[in-house]
Amino acid sequence: MVTINDIASKLGVSKSTVSKGLNNATDISAEMRKKILETAVELGYNSKRLMNREKKLCIIIENMDYHTPNQFGYDIILGFRQMAEPDGWTVEVVPIDKDFQREIPYGVFMMQNGYLGAFILGFSLIDPWMTEFRTSKIPAILYDNYIGSNPRIASVGCDSQEGFDHAVKHLLDLGHRKIGLISGPLESYILKARYNAYINALSKYNLDINEDYIGLGYYVADSTREHVQRMYNLGVTAIICSHDIRAVSAITECMNRGLRIPEDLSIIGFDDLPLAASTEPPLTTVRQDRPALGKAGYYAMSCLLNDLPIGSIMLRAPLIVRSSTGTARKFF
Amino acid sequence: MVTINDIASKLGVSKSTVSKGLNNATDISAEMRKKILETAVELGYNSKRLMNREKKLCIIIENMDYHTPNQFGYDIILGFRQMAEPDGWTVEVVPIDKDFQREIPYGVFMMQNGYLGAFILGFSLIDPWMTEFRTSKIPAILYDNYIGSNPRIASVGCDSQEGFDHAVKHLLDLGHRKIGLISGPLESYILKARYNAYINALSKYNLDINEDYIGLGYYVADSTREHVQRMYNLGVTAIICSHDIRAVSAITECMNRGLRIPEDLSIIGFDDLPLAASTEPPLTTVRQDRPALGKAGYYAMSCLLNDLPIGSIMLRAPLIVRSSTGTARKFF
Repeated sequence: MVTINDIASKLGVSKSTVSKGLNNATDISAEMRKKILETAVELGYNSKRLMNREKKLCIIIENMDYHTPNQFGYDIILGFRQMAEPDGWTVEVVPIDKDFQREIPYGVFMMQNGYLGAFILGFSLIDPWMTEFRTSKIPAILYDNYIGSNPRIASVGCDSQEGFDHAVKHLLDLGHRKIGLISGPLESYILKARYNAYINALSKYNLDINEDYIGLGYYVADSTREHVQRMYNLGVTAIICSHDIRAVSAITECMNRGLRIPEDLSIIGFDDLPLAASTEPPLTTVRQDRPALGKAGYYAMSCLLNDLPIGSIMLRAPLIVRSSTGTARKFF
Repeated sequence: MVTINDIASKLGVSKSTVSKGLNNATDISAEMRKKILETAVELGYNSKRLMNREKKLCIIIENMDYHTPNQFGYDIILGFRQMAEPDGWTVEVVPIDKDFQREIPYGVFMMQNGYLGAFILGFSLIDPWMTEFRTSKIPAILYDNYIGSNPRIASVGCDSQEGFDHAVKHLLDLGHRKIGLISGPLESYILKARYNAYINALSKYNLDINEDYIGLGYYVADSTREHVQRMYNLGVTAIICSHDIRAVSAITECMNRGLRIPEDLSIIGFDDLPLAASTEPPLTTVRQDRPALGKAGYYAMSCLLNDLPIGSIMLRAPLIVRSSTGTARKFF
């Protein structure tokens, strides 16, 4: 067990200085305080004792809207709070960016604010704290991201493989054989996972894997403009999109080109955003149950706070069939 | 919401007959009672109301010893109870076999006994109830097994991929390039998962995948006898075994053949059974944290009982390095 003494001897300062640093006292320098907190984090000083007073968790959010019910993060946050608050936790939502992460290490941020664990939404692989998560001792639950081995970090998400298996099986039953994928670039953990799920699902159902049926691109509208007609011309009869937003863009692109959905091309999304039910035609898509994601985030947090070294909790990913998918067009 | 009325009209009997059947009354025939319970299961009649009196869960176990602390199932069961009982649940352990499953459907068994959920240990793909789990409405948590899509079923296990990634990386760092696998037959869900994890790990570290380096066989001693020397002769310098039991058999086989561990051949197991620490030499192996598996089983159960449609909870799979692995032998 790491004590205040250990921090004091490591830094060569007195116990009372360390104690001041840990308790936010104002009569030591900001620099010394930062050093003390960083050393406390490095040595694994137990933040439960540090921040005795209140049971506090935070939801750290980046690149994700969450203020109104139709925004992606709203229900995830709500689900988390719905589980955590009845258990006596205070939950604070903290929007941040990469500059903020560069300025202050994750562990120090958590200790300074008395948070015992964080639910991390919207991070990408290049977020500075992602490196720190490899060795962090303060629990973090990552939505749609993954860190290997560290027993203080776990992941939650929807099972991409199950989602793509459903989508491909549904298309197969409708007579589709050439199935395309439109996705963002594969530098994202979750887009790579969905790409792999697409490949595995085609392979599971003995469908040809052809790189010409895959279109990747950062800019949504540009990439649908580039790939939808191109794939159609190659005989692709259905396209699965890595996100509903891309699927909506693909629908618009089809409309602009005079391609009928689903007669000429079936389109499937991923997420089941509120807008998916009101596109024209309504979108067949894989559902991410967002309130359940938030609740699973809290279950995962409970596991880590109870020293149960889980790596992941995956939710089911059901396919919601609407009208953007239909029988494959025939070739004469 | 399904009511007693629905069951009564479906069967064309009176409400009071249905009520008798659901409440184990003795003044109706056994046959009628079975029909009533089967219909209740089929319609999804809520067993919480059915068996109001006691909060009861069961652990259904097959093909796994669990009576003494050094047997595999013991700590799993203990971990589950350690979480469930403080929450007010009664947990009963029910050893069964395939004949039992053929005689009575899962749903009927659960209703008759007033169990609200089951933790399933040691099942294989051919167990009769595995088919029923695809559509069952009564929660079941499967250890090392998987059922797609059904939101009332979830899986727990250790992350095979993480375990094999650790094992292969460890061997790579010791200079090994030709790494074998000895496993039971791939008809088992978990052995297939470990086989895939082995292939993926080799591929991740750019090592050759060679089917001559893979030895499968039902009988443990026979398969090590067949494969250990054969692989050694091919230049394999390390063998990962799908279970500690096979690793122990591989160690015996090496001893019989005069092969030194780890100088001639490194051996890695999977499970970290109590015996792994006392083999000669002590076995490097991937740990399945059995108390944690039991606890995760209860967390998964809590999710399903709270209508949270999780598919899986995976535990970390750390590598425990002992003396059965060492620097790869050199070829001159």
